Amino acid sequence: MRRHLLAAAAVLALCAPAAQGIGQSVDRNQVNRLIDEGTNRSQVVLTAAYLSDQIGSRLTNSPGMRRAEAWTQAQFTKWGLRNVHKEGFNFGRGWSIERSSVRMVSPRPIQLTAIPIAWTPATNGTITAPIVVAPMKKEADFAKYRGQLSGKIVLVTLPDALSDEPANSPFKRYTAEDIAKQDVYREAPYDPAAADRRLKRLDYARKMDAFLKAEGAVAWAQMSRNDGKLIHGEGYLFGANETPSLPAVEIAAEDYRRLARLAKIGAAPTLEIASDVRFDDSDRQAYNILAEIPGSDPKAGYVMAGAHLDSWVAGDGAADNGAGTAMIMEAARILSASGVRPKRTIRFALWAGEEQGLLGSMAYVSQHLATRGPANAPQATGMASYYGFSSRWPITPKPGYADLAAYFNLDNGSGKVRGIYAENNAAVVPIFNEWLSPFKAMGAGAVVMGRTGGTDHVFLQQIGLPGFQFIQDPLDYGSRVHHTSIDTFDHLRPDDMRQASIILASFLLNAANADKALPRQPLPTEPVVTDPFKYADDED
Amino acid sequence: MRRHLLAAAAVLALCAPAAQGIGQSVDRNQVNRLIDEGTNRSQVVLTAAYLSDQIGSRLTNSPGMRRAEAWTQAQFTKWGLRNVHKEGFNFGRGWSIERSSVRMVSPRPIQLTAIPIAWTPATNGTITAPIVVAPMKKEADFAKYRGQLSGKIVLVTLPDALSDEPANSPFKRYTAEDIAKQDVYREAPYDPAAADRRLKRLDYARKMDAFLKAEGAVAWAQMSRNDGKLIHGEGYLFGANETPSLPAVEIAAEDYRRLARLAKIGAAPTLEIASDVRFDDSDRQAYNILAEIPGSDPKAGYVMAGAHLDSWVAGDGAADNGAGTAMIMEAARILSASGVRPKRTIRFALWAGEEQGLLGSMAYVSQHLATRGPANAPQATGMASYYGFSSRWPITPKPGYADLAAYFNLDNGSGKVRGIYAENNAAVVPIFNEWLSPFKAMGAGAVVMGRTGGTDHVFLQQIGLPGFQFIQDPLDYGSRVHHTSIDTFDHLRPDDMRQASIILASFLLNAANADKALPRQPLPTEPVVTDPFKYADDED
Repeated sequence: MRRHLLAAAAVLALCAPAAQGIGQSVDRNQVNRLIDEGTNRSQVVLTAAYLSDQIGSRLTNSPGMRRAEAWTQAQFTKWGLRNVHKEGFNFGRGWSIERSSVRMVSPRPIQLTAIPIAWTPATNGTITAPIVVAPMKKEADFAKYRGQLSGKIVLVTLPDALSDEPANSPFKRYTAEDIAKQDVYREAPYDPAAADRRLKRLDYARKMDAFLKAEGAVAWAQMSRNDGKLIHGEGYLFGANETPSLPAVEIAAEDYRRLARLAKIGAAPTLEIASDVRFDDSDRQAYNILAEIPGSDPKAGYVMAGAHLDSWVAGDGAADNGAGTAMIMEAARILSASGVRPKRTIRFALWAGEEQGLLGSMAYVSQHLATRGPANAPQATGMASYYGFSSRWPITPKPGYADLAAYFNLDNGSGKVRGIYAENNAAVVPIFNEWLSPFKAMGAGAVVMGRTGGTDHVFLQQIGLPGFQFIQDPLDYGSRVHHTSIDTFDHLRPDDMRQASIILASFLLNAANADKALPRQPLPTEPVVTDPFKYADDED
Repeated sequence: MRRHLLAAAAVLALCAPAAQGIGQSVDRNQVNRLIDEGTNRSQVVLTAAYLSDQIGSRLTNSPGMRRAEAWTQAQFTKWGLRNVHKEGFNFGRGWSIERSSVRMVSPRPIQLTAIPIAWTPATNGTITAPIVVAPMKKEADFAKYRGQLSGKIVLVTLPDALSDEPANSPFKRYTAEDIAKQDVYREAPYDPAAADRRLKRLDYARKMDAFLKAEGAVAWAQMSRNDGKLIHGEGYLFGANETPSLPAVEIAAEDYRRLARLAKIGAAPTLEIASDVRFDDSDRQAYNILAEIPGSDPKAGYVMAGAHLDSWVAGDGAADNGAGTAMIMEAARILSASGVRPKRTIRFALWAGEEQGLLGSMAYVSQHLATRGPANAPQATGMASYYGFSSRWPITPKPGYADLAAYFNLDNGSGKVRGIYAENNAAVVPIFNEWLSPFKAMGAGAVVMGRTGGTDHVFLQQIGLPGFQFIQDPLDYGSRVHHTSIDTFDHLRPDDMRQASIILASFLLNAANADKALPRQPLPTEPVVTDPFKYADDED
């Protein structure tokens, strides 16, 4: 650790002239005021608790998400943010769980741990039927089960026999070595065939639903990918005319494996499924929430921080992404309460539809920043648009493209900031080293080159805009909390969220006041595939 | 590891003369026949699966336990065991869960993870009521809640704020160092006041039920002691006239903490509890299951191996103690199939009521081995008899006392045998080193002095009989499986259970054929308390 700190200090000393290159008109007392506001008058824990506990899960277009849209706007307004508004985009149906139960009734009664899969229909009372274990994952699998599924609850996952033997603790903080390993420049992969493969898999979900329905199955079930009775319930068919026709549940791994063993060795168990779920089609638009601290120079453009407000439904969306949302909102509150008057506008964005394919931030890109061609391509919807977006060329900047000076995204749980990813934007390294330097004693000392993916900075990066994520201590987010039934407030770390909110506020203020905007990468053009001799794999 | 093996080999060489001291008339080819039978015709996995999956949880006197009593006797008989029978003792009521649900209905609907507490009554339909958080753990706590609990569901656990930050993997195998640390002689603690303190706590459970009932509460709930949505549902008031009057549930930590937070910051949430549980009073006796391989010398006495057959109800009683039961039964099958004709009888015992205080093995002690005085003391029942048993003096051996040459207990999950605990019986160390020596390459090389507790060898040890447990790899038994909803078959390790069954069979055969019985410790007398200057702590 000590060696790491010395090395970081040496890098910083070398970089000081470069950092001065973009200029810093910021009042250096300001950082102490942000720390004071974010420490002694912090609201971030209350914000995270309200989102997680009072509002709870926030599946896009669900009643929970609608409450969150209203409440977050009200909070921004209360804290003095300006231009608070929502921006809609086409999404699909609202869906929520009112009550659910899955129970084995024979060979013996036992209450199972299970959850309805998102956007599957209600059972309209109780379905009682024997199971059949019929593992399937591609259309070619259908043939072997034809004629055998009528009146059955179909278990479609091939169960593994035994539980995991995890080698690591589920709770982790990064060592200096863990962080140093991420300081590596790697080419961004480009595989234009990947989108097709993914679209095919998405299409498979529709075909399986149709097949099972045609065969007379009464419901289907899949197995949780986590051990330890954790469940998720993700589903991706949310469009107005594409929600599934059959009720379906995800069953905890222990319970699913027991069903499969019983079916293999004797009479198939009978299940009783009650899935009281509700659709809401009153508004098919999803909404991003936006709020601002106006800049003093209307021609200087804006910097932005964002987190997705939507969640899955098994837990309360606390780490994913109540924590990120609360820290974005807290940074806004800290800056507003500190009375800053930045040169550039600071915009805060709370995205919708992230869990279904970064759809909120994708909509923002299309609405404000750039179009991706061909312009006359049939516009895919839902998850399909996510898979296809990256392979649409060329990128045509909109007038607003030049205005966005930097974007910071939070979507890695509630762990404290340990540094920041330069995301292959090598030119920002010395600048971020300078901006981080007040926070080394708070644990945030590292600028690493690594690229991160899977969340709302991706589509901004892909059009050549500087989009970043912070290095955060992983805690138990990836190991057991991500999308599961224990994504609850008690798995957040309050101290960490206070620290991260302060550092985000400081980064935003630095970016907003820098004389020059952050260095950009060139406008991307369609890559030449670098390995023309590679045979594509059918499975991705 | 290498150093450890060398050290063990050195000890073995030194001890060989001592091992010869008790004589070995065993055919040395026999061990290879046991290994062959236990490897190539193993039934242990099927036995464990039948107990866990088909029969499921086996709460003492529940329908599951009754099925297990019948099935295990049938299996013993099928495998050629003799004198297969059951021995009853007074226990209490049968109880089982048919269906259950706990749901938060306001401020928003969410299905909670919860389980009825054992031996609490049914709700007879659905109870819907607001919660009140009223942490209590001693009678003195009642005063502050008097008059505030009418019509409420009372949350009696003081919730901690945040989830655990586990530092270790939940799955573990012992290193040589882990095992070496257990090779330490420690005095057995004796604290005659401990029983009184424990009885007081047990009495508190009765008083809390009466207090809440008198106050008009409609149900109560406690918080799980594990994170990660694991639940247990243990309860200890199972006597004929002492089962609780109020319905009660254990709620997963994440769900309980959410309820407590919501209640603290706003209007108390409303819960809906449906607890469809069933009592069975057709037979208040519990039963130990016994089976034998008869010895050739009727005057040579017997050796015994045992495991408790009963379990809790949240899972299937797979690791606790389907695994131990299956390994005991498999050792019996291996020995029977191998056609052994030992000098001493080998007796197999499957205990009942272990989870409520080692009551089955205690009954065996009282029925066959020794009485503990004073003879005219009022006989406490249930858990109370467990707490009081160790402090009743003197110990008066029965005629059968001399006959029991050795007892081996299994109750540590499905992990492979890594060695054996000498349990402070220093004289057996060289003998066990000799008996283990064929199994070092299977991972079982260590004889350590350590004492173990908390299961069915304890009351035999306490009367001076040689009772032992094996060192087993811990796996995820203690970390997440013990008494929880994931005590299921998929958390067992089949390879490990085969190895352990073979080693147990070999130990039994060695003990049954040894020229002399295993060394004993002297008949215990009431200890002089060794630290008369210590002040007793009120809490234990």
